[in-house]
Order: sequence, then structure tokens, then C-alpha cells
Amino acid sequence: MKHCLIALAACLGLVGAARATEAVDHAMVGKIRQEAFHRSQVMQTLSQLTEDVGPRLTNSPGMAKANAWARERMDGWGLSNVHDEAYGPFGRGWEFRNASVEVLAPRPFPLHALPKAWTPGTNGPVEGEAVAATLKTQADLDKQRGKLRGKIVFLDAAREYKPGDKPDSDRYDDHELEELRAFTVPKDRDPAKRAKDAKERLEQIALTEATNRFLAEEGVLATVSISTWDNGIIRLGGGGSRKAGEPAGVPALTMMAEHYNAVMRSLERKQPMRLRVNVDARFTGDTDEMGHSTFAEIPGQGALKDEVVIIGAHLDSWHAGTGAADNAAGVSVMMEAMRILKAVGAKPRRTIRIALWGGEEQGLLGSSDYVTRHYGGWPEPTDPQQKKLPLSLREPTGPLQRKPAHGKVAAYFNYDNGGGRIRGIYTQENTAVAPIFAAWLAPLNDVGATTVTHRNTGSTDHIPFDRIGLPGFQFIQDRLDYFSNVHHSHLDVLDHVVPEDLKQSAAVVATFAWHAAMRDEKLPRMPVREP
Amino acid sequence: MKHCLIALAACLGLVGAARATEAVDHAMVGKIRQEAFHRSQVMQTLSQLTEDVGPRLTNSPGMAKANAWARERMDGWGLSNVHDEAYGPFGRGWEFRNASVEVLAPRPFPLHALPKAWTPGTNGPVEGEAVAATLKTQADLDKQRGKLRGKIVFLDAAREYKPGDKPDSDRYDDHELEELRAFTVPKDRDPAKRAKDAKERLEQIALTEATNRFLAEEGVLATVSISTWDNGIIRLGGGGSRKAGEPAGVPALTMMAEHYNAVMRSLERKQPMRLRVNVDARFTGDTDEMGHSTFAEIPGQGALKDEVVIIGAHLDSWHAGTGAADNAAGVSVMMEAMRILKAVGAKPRRTIRIALWGGEEQGLLGSSDYVTRHYGGWPEPTDPQQKKLPLSLREPTGPLQRKPAHGKVAAYFNYDNGGGRIRGIYTQENTAVAPIFAAWLAPLNDVGATTVTHRNTGSTDHIPFDRIGLPGFQFIQDRLDYFSNVHHSHLDVLDHVVPEDLKQSAAVVATFAWHAAMRDEKLPRMPVREP
Repeated sequence: MKHCLIALAACLGLVGAARATEAVDHAMVGKIRQEAFHRSQVMQTLSQLTEDVGPRLTNSPGMAKANAWARERMDGWGLSNVHDEAYGPFGRGWEFRNASVEVLAPRPFPLHALPKAWTPGTNGPVEGEAVAATLKTQADLDKQRGKLRGKIVFLDAAREYKPGDKPDSDRYDDHELEELRAFTVPKDRDPAKRAKDAKERLEQIALTEATNRFLAEEGVLATVSISTWDNGIIRLGGGGSRKAGEPAGVPALTMMAEHYNAVMRSLERKQPMRLRVNVDARFTGDTDEMGHSTFAEIPGQGALKDEVVIIGAHLDSWHAGTGAADNAAGVSVMMEAMRILKAVGAKPRRTIRIALWGGEEQGLLGSSDYVTRHYGGWPEPTDPQQKKLPLSLREPTGPLQRKPAHGKVAAYFNYDNGGGRIRGIYTQENTAVAPIFAAWLAPLNDVGATTVTHRNTGSTDHIPFDRIGLPGFQFIQDRLDYFSNVHHSHLDVLDHVVPEDLKQSAAVVATFAWHAAMRDEKLPRMPVREP
Repeated sequence: MKHCLIALAACLGLVGAARATEAVDHAMVGKIRQEAFHRSQVMQTLSQLTEDVGPRLTNSPGMAKANAWARERMDGWGLSNVHDEAYGPFGRGWEFRNASVEVLAPRPFPLHALPKAWTPGTNGPVEGEAVAATLKTQADLDKQRGKLRGKIVFLDAAREYKPGDKPDSDRYDDHELEELRAFTVPKDRDPAKRAKDAKERLEQIALTEATNRFLAEEGVLATVSISTWDNGIIRLGGGGSRKAGEPAGVPALTMMAEHYNAVMRSLERKQPMRLRVNVDARFTGDTDEMGHSTFAEIPGQGALKDEVVIIGAHLDSWHAGTGAADNAAGVSVMMEAMRILKAVGAKPRRTIRIALWGGEEQGLLGSSDYVTRHYGGWPEPTDPQQKKLPLSLREPTGPLQRKPAHGKVAAYFNYDNGGGRIRGIYTQENTAVAPIFAAWLAPLNDVGATTVTHRNTGSTDHIPFDRIGLPGFQFIQDRLDYFSNVHHSHLDVLDHVVPEDLKQSAAVVATFAWHAAMRDEKLPRMPVREP
């Protein structure tokens, strides 16, 4: 029996007697579950966002439409203080309508490719010969100068097909969840490596700019890169430059690997290949514009009403699909959690705020700016080179400067690992929150949300909170086919999202938001590590 | 020890003492393996066929190019009696250069689709509204009459995405190979079901013709069908009609499932969708032409030289990819087996012939015609309705009529299960060949070719031999990603073929062809079952 209890405690992620003191509002969890499971609107929200609004590249017309749609929908639910906040300036907007690449000779055939964001269109069809050229260093540019005019330049090496030896879609099993709980003591940071990374990053930025200028000056018709996944999946991001005044290069496409490889093999055989490229894409303006994130609230009541629990996901997406898993899923789950709380008549002590970020895909820009403006940050560097670097690679600029509202944030919860259901949460090494989270998860164990791990997870919008010592967290989610088919790909569309997973996730998030808003204390915090 | 021997015997597919009497030419197998593994040209052959020649729709210019290429390459290797044989008339040729579908409104976006074979092009871009319409019965046609003019008609229901819970690519493990050896005693044929199938087939043929006529008369701009696989894979075949004088309908495309579903959801939401379709496709002539298969030989020597061992694969393919696994792999393996035998100086007793069939994808047409002309068949029906049916659904027309050469065929071996290596062979219930095949496989067990099963396998060019009592066989091959990614899809390209598997296969085929050509007796035969 003793072993069973120890096993149960371990299973719940409990340490010592902490759980006994953490109140769980079982009545409210029951109401939340019922609203989430039986009167869900999460798929309606997801459908509107992915298929009515469509893809939402930051500062594109689609993104502006998404901001407006989110405000309208949340207004309609009776949420308070619905508004956008600007950050930036972010850069120019960009959108595309169509793109095609055809082989004209030796054998006419369509190739499947899509344009990288922030690269120019072709202004109608252009025709030229395919050539392979590596443009990774200044020496490469010098070597190719004068050789690429009127060409369509294939930038990458061919890549051998890798047979898929694992299922596309999977979920955590018990063993894997248990493994997730193991923490690896980190090695010391290596300042020399950090300096080297910073130097290389700056060189890369300079080279990208030089390359874009080179391509335009040389009269290259278009560039083509290989998709990073096989099986015809086109996975892409940005190219060119979003910044007014910076060279945007030439039309740049990402091509499905099998077609890319075929072109490369043809060139290796010295068999010339003539292509027609047509990219209908455009920058929506000539000046850098602010980006926008959207917010709404359920106001707190009483003494703690100026404190806030924030739940967030990024509203922006890439443009190859409709950003369904990345991250309309997160937006829909977070909006649904707000709707559920409103629907069950929640009157929280603290204000519950939803944040739908812009600019996540370009470096957590919306959330970083928001956190800096409202809660604090490190002084901006004055050196223009340092300004170009992400926070994690900059030289120290002084101590963290906290703003008064820094003391008012009870918790931030983020959802951005695709559309898989919540299996638990990462504490970011904040061991004190583990028994609290375990208690909140207990009434949701039966829908698979069980695991608390002290591991850190990164790469999304809880990081700006976490790095200034605010308790910011991201959930553990089932992987489904996020990293096999969907992430940043043309398959990131509604079909690949599982409705029941979003319903479950919304119930978990609403439960977490409610408890964080109701407990006597804000969530425990950790000392700040330098970024 | 006794158990080990029994296990070994079972593993080798041996029954009783038959093996002792089957001679194996170990010296020749060693030479074959060395040529196949260390001086392989199989990937050069595959590359030429898929990327220089390209896709090979029956009677397309690509197929004619493939016939000519095969003749030239086999001539170059010094094979004898290199020639084409005509069959048919097959119908008209068709080819396509390009195809695109764009959403114009509400949100401009490219959709991924490819045209079905033997359907017309659009003669430049056409624009129209997407509508959903079921056209599966005459009543459906009557109901839709007058409603579809200028529309782009989506013919299928949306289909829910099915997450991939198995690896894309796999190989037989020992357990599965053992399972393959289990034979299921068949149920009796049901004459009533056969009559019903025949009736339904004739109704379907009539309806297809009526539908093609209807679509053209009604002024439908194009039709769109959903691809049968998910994950953006476009899998297609033919539409319209290849026969001169029959209505070819209107441009017809197959669209990736996720895009198709998005259109259907838009229509369900009553959100009109305007599309632009551009299909550059054409029939290459106005009259039905003969199809062609290509043959070559290593002549036999001595008393048995008029007897023949045939190895075959189909040269034709669909047009979405380059027909690499289906069936350039088979063609390359069979050609490589001939090259290997020539290279090792094989002087067979019987003639070894390679047959590269046309029209396999349209119903084993090249091989059926060849077998009927050279070896025999059942009398052609006189009733025009019966003529439209495949042999398996026709009413009896009389006894099998054998031609003299029927007695001269020692064996036929076919390769058409993708590009996976050979793991064994199906005996088609011909139990007498099992110990012979097991003996021939023995020196190839170490490269994974081990299993003899009495099961029947169908759907490809050994069937015309098998059904008239000639010993025709197809190999067991590893599945790889043939039925997950590749079969008839736009991913059926060189990248998805594994070079080592083709090398292994060529060694096995050369070994089988050699032994079949050298043994004293032709392979044992089975009584003819009615078709």
C-alpha cells in the first residue's frame, strides 16, 4: 500500500505534502468540462480563423483581418477591454495569390513550389535556365558574379530521400511521459561560444543582405530552395527582407524535395532545363508599419483585480497553408477557454487576459515587445550591431529594469505545440509550481493531462515572461503529425487538427486560468537568470 | 537438432525430399551476384527511363520514346531479336504539359491538382464558380441538367483526414513472411454475383459515357475529384475516354485531399468560391492507334532453343510522377537481369526473352494480347456488350484454344510490386514448383529472398499466362512506401526507389531466368481453370 501511494504521488508529480494545501475548485472544473466537451465552439472558431480569415503572415492583410475577426468574436462573447496593441515597427506587409513553376524543356512538366514570404513577385511569367549555385559566403558571391543573369538559381544541394520509418502521427505513451520527467543538469554556458554565435549571426545578417543585393544587381530571375521535408511537403518561411529600404532580393521559392532533386539531377547530367516561373506576390506598402496583437479580458473582482493571469497564443502564421496547427489551434483553444469561463459565469478574483500575439514567427516579437513595455526588460543596446542580435546573444546592457506591473502578473500560460491535446506542463525549473500544477491537473488526469516536468521548453511566447522572472509556462502537448507533416508546411490546414484534442485543451487551459486567478497568492516565481 | 532441421526446411519452403533433385548452378549464381552487386547498371537504367524518357502513359509520345529507348539500350547490350510488337488498337495518345487551379475569391490561393489522362485541356485559363454535384446515376444527371453550365464541378464528398498510425515505409519481417505462407481455402464462386458484377460493369460503362456526354453538352468547365490519399499526395488515373469517337467529357482533375476538402467546406458554408483552371493537355491524334510492347532475347542453344523463359514488367505508367516504382523499377530490374546474363556470358539452353509491356495500367492489355496471339485464349465473344467486359466477367465462349507455341513456354516471371527487394515468390497454387523455387532461392536467402507461398497474386502481367495454364509468376517484394506514398501518385519518382533493392531484385531474377532456361524440364504446369 505504501508503494502504491508513493507511486501515485510520483505519478501526480507531487513532492512531500504540498498538495494538501492547494485548493482545487472541483465544482468549477465540472462546469468547465461540461461547457468544453458538450457545448464546444472551438472548431467553429478554428474554422473561421483558418478558412474565412486564412493565413496570417505578420503585417499581411490576412493578419489585420485576423485581428479584427478576433476582436469581433470576443466582443460578441461579452469579453471586456477588447483591443489591439501595436508593437514595432515590424516592417512591411506581404501577401501572395499564386505561384507556379513549369519545366518547359526538355520535358514539359509542372513543379510544385511556393514563394518565401517577403520576396518579390515576378510581375507575370518569366522564363530562364535552371542553374545550381551555392551562395553561402562572400567568396561564393564573388565567384558567381556575372554568371547568373536571367537564370533561375537552385541554391541547395540535392538531398537523398529518407524513408519514413515511424508513424506520421503519434501520442505520448506512459513510458514517454515518464521519461519527460527526467531532468538533465545543464552544462555551464560557454561565453566563447556565445561570442562566436553572435559574430556568426552578424556575419549571416550581413551576408543575407549582400546576397539579396547581389541577386537583384545580377538580374537573377528567381531562386529556388529545397523543402526541408520529403513526400511532396512544401515547408517554408521568409526570405528577402520585410524591412523598407533593405534589399528584398528576387523572387524566391521553396520547392518540394522530389521535384528539386530531379532538377539537380538533370543539371548534373549536363542536361539543360528551361523553366517558367510565375509568382503573384506583393509587398503591401513601402514603409515599415507597426504590428498588432489582440487582447481581451474577463475583469477581476475585489482586492486582486489589478493582478492578471494571461493566457496566450500567436495569431500570426506562415502562408503555405492556413496556419491551422501553428497556431490557429492555440488561438482557438485560448479563445475557447475565455468563452468557457464567460459561459460558466466565472467571476475571477484576478483579471484573466487573453493575448493573441503577432510576430511570433519572426522572433516572438509581439510578446517580447508587450512584456518589455508592460513589465520590464534590459536596457536596449546603443551599438547598432548589438541591436540586430536577439537578446540571448547580446552583450550585457545592465540590470533588469522592472516596471510596476511586473508585480501584478500571477501567471502566463501559452499554447503553441500544434493541435495535440495537453498531456501536462513544463515548469521551466520552477519547482515550487509543480505541486500546484499537479493539483490542478488531477481532475483532468482522465483526459490524459497528467505530467509535470521541470524541463524548460522554448521557442514561443512564454519565453519573454520567463526570462524576466515572470511565471510563464507552455503545455506539454501530444505531437500528432506536427513535426512530420504540418509545421510551417502547406499541409498546415484544418484537416490535420483533431477536434477532441482542442476541446480537451480548452478545458485544461480554462481550469488553469481559473485556479491561477483564484488562489490567494500569485504563482511562485524564480530568480531572474541573465538572458 | 531435429527441430532445427524441421525449422530450416520450413524456412526454406521445402516439402519432403524434392529439393535433393533440383540442381542449382552455384557457380553461375556467384557470377550473377557479383555482376548485379558490384557492376550494377540498374540505377543508370532507371534514371534514364524516369528522367530522360519521363512518364509513359500508354500511347503517349513518352511511351513511344520509352519503346525506342528500351530497344536502343538493349541493342547496345548485344541482346538479340530486339523489336516491338503491336497490340490493339489501343486508342488515342494523350499528354499534358501543365495544370493549375487557383482560388480567385474569396481568398486568392493556389490549389494543387493534376489532370486525369484522356481528358481534354482547357485551351487556356477558364474561370468559374465551384459547385458540388454528385453524378453517379442517370437520375443524378437528370437532376443536374441545366444547372452546371460554366461551373467547375466537385464530384466527390469531402473525406475526413486519417492520421498515419503506421510508418510510411516498411519491409516484411520474419513473422509476416511466415504468415504469407498460410493459404486460405477459397469459397465457391457465386455465379449470381458474377452476373450481377457483369451487369453493374456494363451499366457503369454506359453511365461513364453518358456522363462524359452530359458534361460536354451542359458546358461544364471542368470537374474535380478528391485524391484517394491524404497529406497532399495526388493519386490519379484516367478519365474521359481514350477511344476515338467516344465522348471525352471535359477537363477533369484530381486534387490533393486537403485542398479539395477546403473547397467543399466553403461550399457547405454557402461561401461561393471562384476558381481559375488552366490545363495544358492534348490528345495526340484523332484515331485509335495500336499500342506497343518491346521485346529482346538471349537466344537458346541446342535442342531446347525454341522453348522460352520470359521475364517481364510493364513499360507504361501513369503521368503524375515518372512511374519510377510503377513500373520503371520492374523494367530496370528485368533489363538489368538480361544485361547481367549477357555480361556473365550466359549461354542458356532455352531462349530467355524480356517483355516490356504496354497498356498494363488499362487492364494488362499488352500482355493479354501477346499471350492470346502467341499462346492461345478463349474465343472472342460476338455480342458487343460481352466484348466490353473483362475476361473474368464474360459468359463462357467455348474451350481454351491453345496455339502450338503454348507448349514452348517454360516460365514467365513478372516484377510489378514497386521497387522493394524480392522476398520470395507466389506459386499461384502450383505446388509442384515450390521445391524448385525454394532451391533457386537458397543461394539468395542471405539477401532476404526466402519465401515460397502458394497464394495467388493478381493485377499484373503474369495473369494472362497463368489463366491459360502457363506457369506465370510474380515475386513477393518488400512494400517500402509503395502503398502509402507512391502508387499512381505524383511521388512516384526516382527518389522513392532504393538502389540496393533493385540490385538484389536483378540478381534474383537473373538467377530464376537462368535456372528456368537450363533445367531439363519446363516448369510444372497446372490444369486450366476457366477464366
